[in-house]
Amino acid sequence: MNKYHGKSTTVLKPRTTKEVSEIVKWCNDRRIGIVPQGGNTGLVGGSVPVKDELILSLANMSKVRAFDDVSGILVADAGCILQSLSDYLAPHNYVFPLDLGAKGSCQVGGNVSTNAGGLRLLRYGSLHGTVLGLEVVLPDGTILDQLTALRKDNTGYDLKQLFIGAEGTLGIVTGVSILTAPAPQALNNVMLALPKFDNVLPLFKEVKRQLSEILSAFEYIDRSVYDLAVKHNQGRALDAEEVEGAECFVLVETSGGNREHDEQKLNNLLESLMEADEPLINTGVLATSPAQFASLWAIREGLTEAVSKEGKAYKYDISVPLQKFQEVLDITREHLKSKGLMREGAVRHVVGYGHVGDGKSGNLHLNVVADAYTPEIEAALEPFVYELVAKYKGSVSAEHGIGVMKTHALQYSKNAVSIDWMKRIKQLFDPKGIMNPGKVLP
Amino acid sequence: MNKYHGKSTTVLKPRTTKEVSEIVKWCNDRRIGIVPQGGNTGLVGGSVPVKDELILSLANMSKVRAFDDVSGILVADAGCILQSLSDYLAPHNYVFPLDLGAKGSCQVGGNVSTNAGGLRLLRYGSLHGTVLGLEVVLPDGTILDQLTALRKDNTGYDLKQLFIGAEGTLGIVTGVSILTAPAPQALNNVMLALPKFDNVLPLFKEVKRQLSEILSAFEYIDRSVYDLAVKHNQGRALDAEEVEGAECFVLVETSGGNREHDEQKLNNLLESLMEADEPLINTGVLATSPAQFASLWAIREGLTEAVSKEGKAYKYDISVPLQKFQEVLDITREHLKSKGLMREGAVRHVVGYGHVGDGKSGNLHLNVVADAYTPEIEAALEPFVYELVAKYKGSVSAEHGIGVMKTHALQYSKNAVSIDWMKRIKQLFDPKGIMNPGKVLP
Ligand SMILES: Cc1cc2nc3c(=O)[nH]c(=O)nc-3n(C[C@H](O)[C@H](O)[C@H](O)COP(=O)(O)OP(=O)(O)OC[C@H]3O[C@@H](n4cnc5c(N)ncnc54)[C@H](O)[C@@H]3O)c2cc1C
Ligand SMILES: Cc1cc2nc3c(=O)[nH]c(=O)nc-3n(C[C@H](O)[C@H](O)[C@H](O)COP(=O)(O)OP(=O)(O)OC[C@H]3O[C@@H](n4cnc5c(N)ncnc54)[C@H](O)[C@@H]3O)c2cc1C
Repeated sequence: MNKYHGKSTTVLKPRTTKEVSEIVKWCNDRRIGIVPQGGNTGLVGGSVPVKDELILSLANMSKVRAFDDVSGILVADAGCILQSLSDYLAPHNYVFPLDLGAKGSCQVGGNVSTNAGGLRLLRYGSLHGTVLGLEVVLPDGTILDQLTALRKDNTGYDLKQLFIGAEGTLGIVTGVSILTAPAPQALNNVMLALPKFDNVLPLFKEVKRQLSEILSAFEYIDRSVYDLAVKHNQGRALDAEEVEGAECFVLVETSGGNREHDEQKLNNLLESLMEADEPLINTGVLATSPAQFASLWAIREGLTEAVSKEGKAYKYDISVPLQKFQEVLDITREHLKSKGLMREGAVRHVVGYGHVGDGKSGNLHLNVVADAYTPEIEAALEPFVYELVAKYKGSVSAEHGIGVMKTHALQYSKNAVSIDWMKRIKQLFDPKGIMNPGKVLP
Repeated sequence: MNKYHGKSTTVLKPRTTKEVSEIVKWCNDRRIGIVPQGGNTGLVGGSVPVKDELILSLANMSKVRAFDDVSGILVADAGCILQSLSDYLAPHNYVFPLDLGAKGSCQVGGNVSTNAGGLRLLRYGSLHGTVLGLEVVLPDGTILDQLTALRKDNTGYDLKQLFIGAEGTLGIVTGVSILTAPAPQALNNVMLALPKFDNVLPLFKEVKRQLSEILSAFEYIDRSVYDLAVKHNQGRALDAEEVEGAECFVLVETSGGNREHDEQKLNNLLESLMEADEPLINTGVLATSPAQFASLWAIREGLTEAVSKEGKAYKYDISVPLQKFQEVLDITREHLKSKGLMREGAVRHVVGYGHVGDGKSGNLHLNVVADAYTPEIEAALEPFVYELVAKYKGSVSAEHGIGVMKTHALQYSKNAVSIDWMKRIKQLFDPKGIMNPGKVLP
């Protein structure tokens, strides 16, 4: 987005938890603000100073501390880059329970601090479940060592949970203990073309029923963003004629322990879908090679880039009930029309894609693609979109957090009592307000 | 255990969250202590008054509020009994992500408040991951409504996590939103006899590799507790000759979406185990009927009862590294011997069983079976066992919590900084100390 440029010039890169603690204590004594920084890939400006805070980068704390190949429990410095942890695990036949587009730069400490969701959430669940322990330097410099490698430990309050998703406002994560998963032996995927949006939900139910524990992704792609991907050469899953009459697409991925079994399940699924009296899908393409598997994912992963190539995008990463995905797009489009903004020179497309598998309230990436960022469009979109989300009891930030960009929008997803208690927690841990000031809380 | 008998006579059973709020506010204004009570099945005295606190029972709040059969998200009153929620879900083809022996009486609010683990943890993960939202009445009567049914919502601190496992000391859980799982189509199990304890770990690795995502339980049973189960008619999985030479047993369960596939995987596993040059197992019995499936589980589930029938049991529910299970039993036995307590009239058996699948640090149920509870035996066991656990960096309470029974032992699993911060959190939420006084914190 490049919307936020920090002014701070001081970047410290401590090498040990003790050094982090000393820096933090020093700053706390002098009321100097600190911005914890991981890979700086966050999308809401959380790792960027708003005034003249000091940047504390974890980049030099990047060692694996321990790995147990029986349990799959990994203990690592917070500054480890996600990709490097994946690479570390591969020869042990384990995978990190989290994967996302920014894996080459983002750090595990940043992932924890943003409670990153990503592409494996459906399969392995959220970091609140997989993170077993944390080591955190609190705003007064105290080291809170909860770096247990126990999967089960019911001895009092689970304090570490507060730091998962706190975006660095309660302390600095310096170490992470996490349960990794046995590497799947087989990955398969299939791209399905649907005649109408209304079929997505029944399809999701049927796919869950048939694929059960091997289902690892169910991604929704609306027709217009699919077309943008094709236009900007992000790949092409289906022939022109297969695309004809499709209102939207779904990418289904399986990952399991036995290739033969998984393929059979996918084939059975496709057959039963095609042979139904009123088929939920027009057609489906099953990847039959690793190359084809990658090219189906390439489309999904290329959507962001396709949108960027098309124009300036206003991006909303929201949770709304699955049933309402299409409605949100339609209402937003109508609203922009009524303001005279759906036209050349202003907004060109209102498109959507997202993770359906994530529950009743799917995670919808709503992208409004314009020729340029303008105050008119912004005024038309906000708080309009947030109010829409609130109406559906959704979330204004499904994945990316609040950072500095969305503090004003927090109220649309969290009630007054919740915000009040968040403030009390902040006050308890950081009475001087030195830890990532101006972020998360309004 | 029947060790704790409360003295309180006042039991209130509110019907709505608003009533709970009014009662709590009334008590807070008068500094009257409250003990939240669910099904009263907890094993550490947490739901029993220590002085003259009022008991607030959730028994009359037992309605399902909502269920969405596309996402599997269930929203229920805290007083719903676990079994009744399971029954509710069955016709929808979903299962509750938690199962435990007390399911006929325990309540979902009690499960959340104790962060119950139970038999499905290996498969579905902990409540910190599956609980999506909570409604909680805080000690001042405020209703904290975080009853979202969103799987993804990164808008600030995840406050609800604090109440998961807080054993009613921070507030009263009145509503729970939880992600349930598609019902498995097939359940299978197999009982394996191992020549020596040292084979358990390599076996676990091999089983995880071959069964992957369908592995749903891996339960360790030592020889002496198996013999007690047989003696007290809790079942018999193997013939006398099959048992011969076995130092311990392992019960493996699978649950998956396709019976044929799952059986094939289990059969392949057994074959490869038996055909190995140096087999990790002596023998294995695969359940071939629902009745046999149930009878294999009956042994595992009957261990507690077998122990009770044999004598008075000192029970420790600890987490220690898997590799150390046997060592913990041996050291404890030697220690009791050195005190002259391993004899008729005193301690008869030191036995163990537990959930290996729960990570590097398995959950070991260490049972010391004596003829009678005596001060000598107690003095020999405590703090001896806790110190042993601390030496292995384990947990003094893997599953059952701290309650009133283990407040003195908390220090063996939590460092001073952690306990200090737990106290600050308690002080923040409950400055007058009315919520379940005397529990969790020393
Ligand atoms: C191409 C692309 C794809 C993405 N895909 C996804 C996705 O699928 N799902 C998703 O959830 N996000 C996604 N993101 C967003 C982003 O990558 C994640 O939020 C990531 O977890 C941030 O990690 P980071 O190390 O870059 O953190 P940063 O950007 O450096 O920081 C993010 C926040 O965490 C704080 N922080 C960082 N490190 C620490 C620490 N050690 N201790 C305390 N606070 C800390 C910062 O102060 C800041 O508030 C994507 C981003 C890009 C660019
Ligand atoms: C046969 C048997 C088998 C068991 N197996 C397991 C097992 O496998 N795994 C496991 O983890 N546990 C097990 N337990 C322990 C126990 O069943 C669990 O801890 C259960 O979750 C307690 O639920 P409950 O409703 O009975 O809570 P209670 O016993 O009534 O209360 C437990 C604690 O939670 C608090 N509490 C209860 N309800 C609320 C509420 N609504 N809001 C706030 N606080 C509340 C109480 O104050 C108390 O501190 C077993 C117990 C038995 C008797």
